[in-house]
Formats: sequence, structure tokens, C-alpha cells
Amino acid sequence: MPTDTLSRTFAALADPTRRAMLARLAEGEATVNELAAPFDMSLPNISKHLKVLQGAGLVVQGREGQFRPCRLDPEAFEDASDWLDRHRQAYEERMDRLADYLRELQDGETGTEASTGPRRAARPTTAPRRRTDGRSGDTRP
Amino acid sequence: MPTDTLSRTFAALADPTRRAMLARLAEGEATVNELAAPFDMSLPNISKHLKVLQGAGLVVQGREGQFRPCRLDPEAFEDASDWLDRHRQAYEERMDRLADYLRELQDGETGTEASTGPRRAARPTTAPRRRTDGRSGDTRP
Repeated sequence: MPTDTLSRTFAALADPTRRAMLARLAEGEATVNELAAPFDMSLPNISKHLKVLQGAGLVVQGREGQFRPCRLDPEAFEDASDWLDRHRQAYEERMDRLADYLRELQDGETGTEASTGPRRAARPTTAPRRRTDGRSGDTRP
Repeated sequence: MPTDTLSRTFAALADPTRRAMLARLAEGEATVNELAAPFDMSLPNISKHLKVLQGAGLVVQGREGQFRPCRLDPEAFEDASDWLDRHRQAYEERMDRLADYLRELQDGETGTEASTGPRRAARPTTAPRRRTDGRSGDTRP
């Protein structure tokens, strides 16, 4: 397992069983037995996955009570998603600046009267695609 | 390497060198040599990391030109961050409902005249932290 927190978080997320366990915990606390129920997997194996999730800060387990229920810790989710969003944003801002620059170049070539027409078309095909489908459905369970 | 796309993306992100390469590419295209420059690492090692990033869909490499520059692909970033946000949101909505329920219980005990005072205090400490940085929660620009 990696040593830095963010790497541990991403590594923990890189497994479908662990993501399914997190999806279950997003719906409510669960004991280890409850977490294990939907999986065709031995309890020791489930515990191993759970340890990875705990080591990554994604799940915390209660210290009291006979069943020590597990719950999700949203902070690690937020840290990972912040990292992704920050760099995607930097990229998209750069693409926007590039698109502006290309439009300026084109305006210079065709004269200002054409500046409203071809603006959109000047956007490079590598520019960020905006989600338009209201989404979040496609690749998700 | 894992077989499903989302696992491959998270696995690729679980390494500080690869994240540094992505941060570099967020600032602009780069050739493999340019990508390798800041790292005290052999070119074959850098190429290995690059292959993992490409396999995860996070980076694409141009097919033309002598130097085949690499650039970031924002879509994989978005898919990974969507997964995180969706489950964090489900968790936070559940915590909100729980907080509402606790407030109702408390209102029932103390009478309606106390309903404006302790409402905030009844919010559990595990309640969702709201973004305060102008990102409006939806995580998309």
C-alpha cells in the first residue's frame, strides 16, 4: 500500500468490491456481517478489504458495542475529488484561454464583423466537453 | 492492473509520480522528455508510468509528429470525481435526514417554542461540511 494519504485513498478506491462496500455504507451504517452479506466472499476477505478502506480514511469503525458498526467518512472522498477537480479545472481554463486566443486570431483574419458568427466554430475540438445530459447515470449502478 | 475502467483510473491516481505528471499536463501538453525532466527517474520508468495513465484514460498521446506530445483527457477525471461525489452526496443527504429526525424528536420533547433555538445545535457533528469556496457543490464549472 502507498504511504501518502491521497495515494492510499485512490488505491482503496481501485477495487469494485471496495467501491460496492462504500456504496452500501453511503446508505447507512453496517456491521461487518451486514457488509459481507451481498458478496460471495469469505469474512476474512471482507475484513481485509475493510482494513484497506479504513487505512485510506474512507471508513471508520465504531469502537463500542458488540457489532462495531462501520460508517463512511466523507472527508477522504472530498480530498480525492478536490484533487481531481482542481487539475481538471486548470486544464479546462487553459483550453478556454487557448480557444479565446484562436478566436482572436480568426477575428484578426476575417475582420470584426465576423466576430459573432464563427466564434463557436473556432473552439478547438479538444476543448472541454460540458456534460449536457443532466447525467450522472451512465457508468453508475 | 484492474480490469474495469473506474478501477484502472483510481489505480493510476494512486501514485505521487503519476499525479505529478498529471498536474504537469494540466498546465499544457508535454513530450515524454519534458514530462520526465522534473523527475529523478529513468526514461523507461517514466514511460511505464505514462502507459498506466494512458491505460486509465487519463492521458492521451498524439500519434503524429516526431515528439508525440501527451495531453490530459478530462473525461476520466470527471468519471472518477462523479463517483466520489455521488456517494458522498448520498451519505450527506442521509445525515441531513437524520438531523431532521433528531430535531423533530427534540421539538417533541421541548415543545414548539424551543424549535428555533436548538435547531442548529441538534445537528450531529458528523453532518456534511458544505463547500464554502464558491464551488456551489455541483463540482462542475
